[in-house]
Amino acid sequence: MTKIMAINSGSSSLKFKLFEMPNEEVLVEGSVERIGFKDASFSYKHDGKKVSKELEILNHEEAVNQLLEVLIDEKMIASYDEIGGVGHRISHGGTYYSDATLIDEVVEERIGELSVLSPLHNPVNLIGIRSFKKVLPNTKQVAIFDTSYHHTIPKKNYMYALPYEYYEKYDIRRYGFHGPSHQYVAEESAKLNPTGSKTITCHIGSGASVSAVLDGKSINSSMGFTPLAGLVMGTRTGDIDPQIIPFIQDKEGLSPQEVKDLMNTKSGLLGLSGVSSDYRDVEKAADEGNERAQLALDVFAHQVVHYIGAYAADLNGLDTLVFTAGVGEHSARVRTEITNYLSYLGVEIDETKNQQDELSIESTNSRVKVLVIPTDEEVIIARDVMRVAKLN
Amino acid sequence: MTKIMAINSGSSSLKFKLFEMPNEEVLVEGSVERIGFKDASFSYKHDGKKVSKELEILNHEEAVNQLLEVLIDEKMIASYDEIGGVGHRISHGGTYYSDATLIDEVVEERIGELSVLSPLHNPVNLIGIRSFKKVLPNTKQVAIFDTSYHHTIPKKNYMYALPYEYYEKYDIRRYGFHGPSHQYVAEESAKLNPTGSKTITCHIGSGASVSAVLDGKSINSSMGFTPLAGLVMGTRTGDIDPQIIPFIQDKEGLSPQEVKDLMNTKSGLLGLSGVSSDYRDVEKAADEGNERAQLALDVFAHQVVHYIGAYAADLNGLDTLVFTAGVGEHSARVRTEITNYLSYLGVEIDETKNQQDELSIESTNSRVKVLVIPTDEEVIIARDVMRVAKLN
Repeated sequence: MTKIMAINSGSSSLKFKLFEMPNEEVLVEGSVERIGFKDASFSYKHDGKKVSKELEILNHEEAVNQLLEVLIDEKMIASYDEIGGVGHRISHGGTYYSDATLIDEVVEERIGELSVLSPLHNPVNLIGIRSFKKVLPNTKQVAIFDTSYHHTIPKKNYMYALPYEYYEKYDIRRYGFHGPSHQYVAEESAKLNPTGSKTITCHIGSGASVSAVLDGKSINSSMGFTPLAGLVMGTRTGDIDPQIIPFIQDKEGLSPQEVKDLMNTKSGLLGLSGVSSDYRDVEKAADEGNERAQLALDVFAHQVVHYIGAYAADLNGLDTLVFTAGVGEHSARVRTEITNYLSYLGVEIDETKNQQDELSIESTNSRVKVLVIPTDEEVIIARDVMRVAKLN
Repeated sequence: MTKIMAINSGSSSLKFKLFEMPNEEVLVEGSVERIGFKDASFSYKHDGKKVSKELEILNHEEAVNQLLEVLIDEKMIASYDEIGGVGHRISHGGTYYSDATLIDEVVEERIGELSVLSPLHNPVNLIGIRSFKKVLPNTKQVAIFDTSYHHTIPKKNYMYALPYEYYEKYDIRRYGFHGPSHQYVAEESAKLNPTGSKTITCHIGSGASVSAVLDGKSINSSMGFTPLAGLVMGTRTGDIDPQIIPFIQDKEGLSPQEVKDLMNTKSGLLGLSGVSSDYRDVEKAADEGNERAQLALDVFAHQVVHYIGAYAADLNGLDTLVFTAGVGEHSARVRTEITNYLSYLGVEIDETKNQQDELSIESTNSRVKVLVIPTDEEVIIARDVMRVAKLN
């Protein structure tokens, strides 16, 4: 038995999940939020008990120390040595990493380099790595990239029709993100529909992406060069006519950075509805008769339909359709609105099962298996640590 | 019998087609090219005879005068009065025009205003209108907009997930273009497959767009706010992750205008292949073993497949698939590559018919009618002039 820590670092947060492997039992999970503030919060769930406290945590290293102290105090581990490995979710692996990798200095350097492609996430992911390294210098650390699962996307699907030099100079291409999530639900769906080789996985949360999965391998994914592209998200535009950008820049006198902010933080459900970036809030407003909220939901669902349609063509058919992540797992409405368009693919859902968020929601007549699978990116991380650090 | 002139004005060109209506007989067609130069060319086809001459034509008004003189000289008309109406193809009708309209001063003004949305085309379209007005002051003139046919696209399909204020302030939304072409082939396809209500029309030339047509009405189209969006074209990117734009601006220090030029004139087949913007040249290079040329063809075809898939979802199925315009009408290869992905929709083509560019190329087993229809935007213009100017 080995204990493996799965880590997801944000700019002011650190989410963690400690597994006992290989049986994949979750010993504790939680998060440190508001790192850098005097009123940071540390909360975790253990043995059915929820604990939350406020304290000063000035940086990620302190957060890691706090976390390990709690593990000792609560007797979840007897000593630091019991942690066999730490897995870090890393936003961007660029063209380098088609798989998780053991972290050494070269890997750290590359993750730093790749901050160019993921300026919001790679730098803080790296802080997470370095904090653990300091506190647990002898523990194996593994990087699990959001992009790796999509390295099987063929070139004709990942190239943009820009001058080729931009691909050569800047690695501008489609990468695809949310890899551990798409991988997890694709693997689970393969167990539930083992004869189905053509799968579309819809990760719909505040970030959202759709993937086309053929025989377990990603062959396309809606996020692109960055996590902005594809679906409408909480605050992100998804796909828009790219010429809108210089048009708005001209009209409003916006710099490249300002237009990035506009597309990433003021658009999506929030921008369209004017209500909220949270699907549930927008849903509520729509139910209360807010027309822009209803429009936002319609555009949101339509863009998912658009990608499912496109990926059914990529796959030349569809055997299994999977919904996951916050909205995908919990909104029966979004699943109904989307699947209403898909009867031509043989998709038919059982509305009773759908309303209850059941695992399998297709009707008996459906030619396509329709699944609602709670995602588990952390277990993919833990498994990758075991495999890559050879802890089996 | 009435004679109707259909006009398509470019920045230095004027294309014309004179019809006898309502029987739709083409009396003469041709073009004036290199307007503004001493060695402008004037060429036309009449009675199976091709004429081409070089002469000085300094502006569009002179081009119109030249054209009318030739019509008299060649006895195609006895006097100017015989021309019952002139129809002008106009790039952008904005939110104003859901149909062709008789041109008066308000219409002229609006076409001018809408230059904001179509800076390359509306201004020269307007020059065409004013030149004819000067030479034929008493002749009814009608504007036929590239965008009108797409006014039936529902709001959920035309809204972008940007802050709503940009829609209100600048009319930023999907418009769709190539209207007369999609309309023409959709109408023809309805005659050839009258029971089919779900049609996808693929206009694939150096400009390219796909439309979803339900019961004869456009419900979606791949060009967006501008004609840049959607498919890969000769020199245009089509859809790309919009965040690539500010990224390239940062890296290369490009202004909004420079990045527009990059996306419109240096990308597409040309940018990817490095060979040419012309599909035939790229095809030839690919056949000779040029890998980037092959990649360009693959990306090009894949993007068409992507939209056909998406629009099959919009339509919840497919009855008729239509190919038109230069590449769509003449490249059996592109039709094969595209339809290879579509057997899940019941599309199957007869390769012998396909190789011969036959009108109807589906196999006997195909559940979907597959048509190759030469487009005729000018006849749509002539019909609209008759109807709108009440010349019937």
